[in-house]
Amino acid sequence: MPSHDEMVRTVERYVEAFDKNDAAMAADLYATDATVEDPIGTPIHRGRDAIHAFYAASMQANAKLRLDGPVRTGGDYAAFAFTVLVDFGGPKEIEVIDTFKFDAEGKVMEMRAYWNPANMRDTAAA
Amino acid sequence: MPSHDEMVRTVERYVEAFDKNDAAMAADLYATDATVEDPIGTPIHRGRDAIHAFYAASMQANAKLRLDGPVRTGGDYAAFAFTVLVDFGGPKEIEVIDTFKFDAEGKVMEMRAYWNPANMRDTAAA
Repeated sequence: MPSHDEMVRTVERYVEAFDKNDAAMAADLYATDATVEDPIGTPIHRGRDAIHAFYAASMQANAKLRLDGPVRTGGDYAAFAFTVLVDFGGPKEIEVIDTFKFDAEGKVMEMRAYWNPANMRDTAAA
Repeated sequence: MPSHDEMVRTVERYVEAFDKNDAAMAADLYATDATVEDPIGTPIHRGRDAIHAFYAASMQANAKLRLDGPVRTGGDYAAFAFTVLVDFGGPKEIEVIDTFKFDAEGKVMEMRAYWNPANMRDTAAA
């Protein structure tokens, strides 16, 4: 099982992948048969190819992540709160919490993102 | 399924239950057969009686919760980041993210708390 520090580093690399617009870097954090449910309750992206395509689409909207507070970990999970800055027909901010479940090799095997339209707001006037 | 606002209200009542040291108020937010895993990866408290006992013990240590940022919801889940202020042989702060899964009646059926000792710090000197 990865250590607290290893899980935190993976979250930091995830943020960095968005900074660099590097979908391959984000996808590489995942196990080959991993799942991504974003937002929770919607159809699941299965496998690293589908996950790569999902991040490539997010990054086309120039999504950037700003961590809100420290990464929490417990057992083989990390949870972290962040704000997504994104351009969906104008600048928006979306407040999200993600959970990562890790496998024994320290790859993410399950990601779930907690957010919905009530957590999104326009920032054009800000 | 409860609305975003209903789920947020439940989280606010959860915080209020700690403010009031009212374990019954916290337990009443749960379905009768709910589960609490706190922290994630440790043995699960099953059923409202076990959950009541768990909160009564936490509140004996005078635990208080301070929300860190807005509650996120998605599907039938809420996720929220917070800091626990608690007295474990001196004042401590623990940074935690909880997820609540709701049933159709708006009761919490599954709680999971993401934190570990790396998320705890002494605050005696602060």
